[in-house]
Amino acid sequence: MSNPSGIVSFTTDFGTADTFVGEMKGAALAVRRDLVLVDLSHDVPPHDVEAGAYRLEVGCGSFPDGTVHVAVVDPGVGTSRRALVVETGRFWFVGPDNGILGRALRREEIRSIHAIENPRYGRPSPSPTFHGRDVFAPAAAWIASGVAAADFGPAIRDPVGLDRSMESRLPGAFEVRVLGADRFGNLALDLHRDALPTVGEDGAPPWDVRVSAPSGEIHRFVSTYGDATGDDPFLLFNSAGYLEISCRERSAQEALGLIPGTTTMVDLIDRQPDGKENA
Amino acid sequence: MSNPSGIVSFTTDFGTADTFVGEMKGAALAVRRDLVLVDLSHDVPPHDVEAGAYRLEVGCGSFPDGTVHVAVVDPGVGTSRRALVVETGRFWFVGPDNGILGRALRREEIRSIHAIENPRYGRPSPSPTFHGRDVFAPAAAWIASGVAAADFGPAIRDPVGLDRSMESRLPGAFEVRVLGADRFGNLALDLHRDALPTVGEDGAPPWDVRVSAPSGEIHRFVSTYGDATGDDPFLLFNSAGYLEISCRERSAQEALGLIPGTTTMVDLIDRQPDGKENA
Amino acid sequence: MSNPSGIVSFTTDFGTADTFVGEMKGAALAVRRDLVLVDLSHDVPPHDVEAGAYRLEVGCGSFPDGTVHVAVVDPGVGTSRRALVVETGRFWFVGPDNGILGRALRREEIRSIHAIENPRYGRPSPSPTFHGRDVFAPAAAWIASGVAAADFGPAIRDPVGLDRSMESRLPGAFEVRVLGADRFGNLALDLHRDALPTVGEDGAPPWDVRVSAPSGEIHRFVSTYGDATGDDPFLLFNSAGYLEISCRERSAQEALGLIPGTTTMVDLIDRQPDGKENA
Repeated sequence: MSNPSGIVSFTTDFGTADTFVGEMKGAALAVRRDLVLVDLSHDVPPHDVEAGAYRLEVGCGSFPDGTVHVAVVDPGVGTSRRALVVETGRFWFVGPDNGILGRALRREEIRSIHAIENPRYGRPSPSPTFHGRDVFAPAAAWIASGVAAADFGPAIRDPVGLDRSMESRLPGAFEVRVLGADRFGNLALDLHRDALPTVGEDGAPPWDVRVSAPSGEIHRFVSTYGDATGDDPFLLFNSAGYLEISCRERSAQEALGLIPGTTTMVDLIDRQPDGKENA
Repeated sequence: MSNPSGIVSFTTDFGTADTFVGEMKGAALAVRRDLVLVDLSHDVPPHDVEAGAYRLEVGCGSFPDGTVHVAVVDPGVGTSRRALVVETGRFWFVGPDNGILGRALRREEIRSIHAIENPRYGRPSPSPTFHGRDVFAPAAAWIASGVAAADFGPAIRDPVGLDRSMESRLPGAFEVRVLGADRFGNLALDLHRDALPTVGEDGAPPWDVRVSAPSGEIHRFVSTYGDATGDDPFLLFNSAGYLEISCRERSAQEALGLIPGTTTMVDLIDRQPDGKENA
Repeated sequence: MSNPSGIVSFTTDFGTADTFVGEMKGAALAVRRDLVLVDLSHDVPPHDVEAGAYRLEVGCGSFPDGTVHVAVVDPGVGTSRRALVVETGRFWFVGPDNGILGRALRREEIRSIHAIENPRYGRPSPSPTFHGRDVFAPAAAWIASGVAAADFGPAIRDPVGLDRSMESRLPGAFEVRVLGADRFGNLALDLHRDALPTVGEDGAPPWDVRVSAPSGEIHRFVSTYGDATGDDPFLLFNSAGYLEISCRERSAQEALGLIPGTTTMVDLIDRQPDGKENA
């Protein structure tokens, strides 16, 4: 692992109307004053661990090596659920052991996973309702200050929700989860470019994709929003590599009636080099 | 007082859709480039000084000694209301003299209170509508740069709203203000753990609390959210030490019909060491 | 131009619920770790270049010399629209060549305008849908690290939307655009104090202003919110110098029915030194 960069990112379901996020940052700065603190998102739907895991996954990648990513969506705060620090080839991740780190970690080379138990690296008399401030933020700051992951507690061999490998998709029909909608109403589907067959010898992707929605089938594929014309919904890979449904200058979520957290059918169709399809 | 930490926190009713907060930060950085700027909350309801005072109080505590906390909820901007810098045992506070600092200051050891009058520490030609940018943010940055509070203006002996001491509560029934609801719909009441009788000789708190709500009485008490079961509302102390009403995975505010800013009846019941109550 | 300050401000229509802004900051920090990153606004209405241009204009001025201001409202991302870096007497501006920089630049002394084409200063394999992260944020960080604007690409002589000079207004009636409403419901009009006749010999402004709204004419003029009395709407110059319609403790936008993006009639009336009007 490279050295800590002194950068800490935050992903939570705390919102920004209350002072929770500021309190976390204060607790981190109380450990080390010269941290660089960056918000990934605090608008994860309350208690929605899966939605938080997706945001952490798509948000963490652009940061420099040595960044500490803290993620706190933690309905079990103050109970016996464990707290984790995970070291990977590029980053550290800090959060509750409830699967919030799962999606991000399947893309990283995991070096170690430790429980956070050593009270030396938390705030004194931690509140049973706010480990974000009293456990996770200080832990992240101590890691960013060079404390070794092993100093926090014992190694963990059975973390929650870290076993999902990315499934390779072959031609056929399958159910895909709607991961969420962004501010523009674009709908991300849990189908990543890396899980699809690679580009064929003629330079064109050797597949077509069709997505079912209540309002009809979507199959037009473009490379960026500005390439689309007309009012029909279209498909593209979003900036995190996931298949996305979009509409020109209106919300695909509103237009199509697809709901984050549900699934939809996707047809992956093999295409012959001559352009014909082979379902 | 310790030395300035170079950290400045911000609490306002400016929201984050407009550029007001960014303009304040720009003005602070124009004084000193290497400040660490942290948002506590900018979603204080517009002009609601009391709500801002509560957020500043609960938000400021986790920061390291030497932090400058700026709070601007300022319906009287540009009129003759005074601007203050307050030095305490741990922090500096900067804001209008309208009570916004009151709740935070009753927990701190006040060292000095000065008016901000010296134009040298503000922006030239200050806008009569935006002292956050032209007076308070630069003042905070100058304090964080080591300027003494006394250099800003004369000592003030009659600040607005600093006289509220925390009232100790004995068994009985009394009206308590609903301070606000957080993102999860948890309702904070203006009854702090520190104002209640301390733990008895048997280790259990020597009191029971019952809160009246339009939908019925709430008396179940837990130590953290994950300890609650069922659908009924329950009580706990929130991470700032205030009595809080919560519901499992739904909004207590919506479920109970209690409105921030109004009051509700709280019964504090003395409990005998044998577990019997003695109202 | 002065040296880079190491400060980068961000104005986008990305919102803060998603991780887009955090990803931009991560990409900037990957170039240079010790940047100071400040949000101006991320709540520009989606794809609304004009609204973004107004926020950048009013938000950028308080920052210290040498700040890099990045603005990304970019419906044409990934198409052939150009990307720009503009050097002015005080700042650098970075954004798409679609007019987003226009309003801010008319107030600055433009030194140079270059296209961003050199892939060395962007992220490898840039996403066609997210130049904010893969082109603009890294470019800003490189500028803040001392890379010269000319290293990014060829000089540009025909940028989009930079030709609007501020029109001086003489007495009479004219249409003025409603620029937007802030969090308090105050409505900003596209009529700047600098475009009006200067103060007369008697010290009073030699003009009266009357604004037409569906609910009637507004003509009361005050210098700050706290000076207004009663319930009627009033006029003042906002903290950016633009004519603003406000109401005491309620939203002028809701009360008056004026819609941002539309126009309204403004009468500028010459006033004699004796206080009489001369329309």
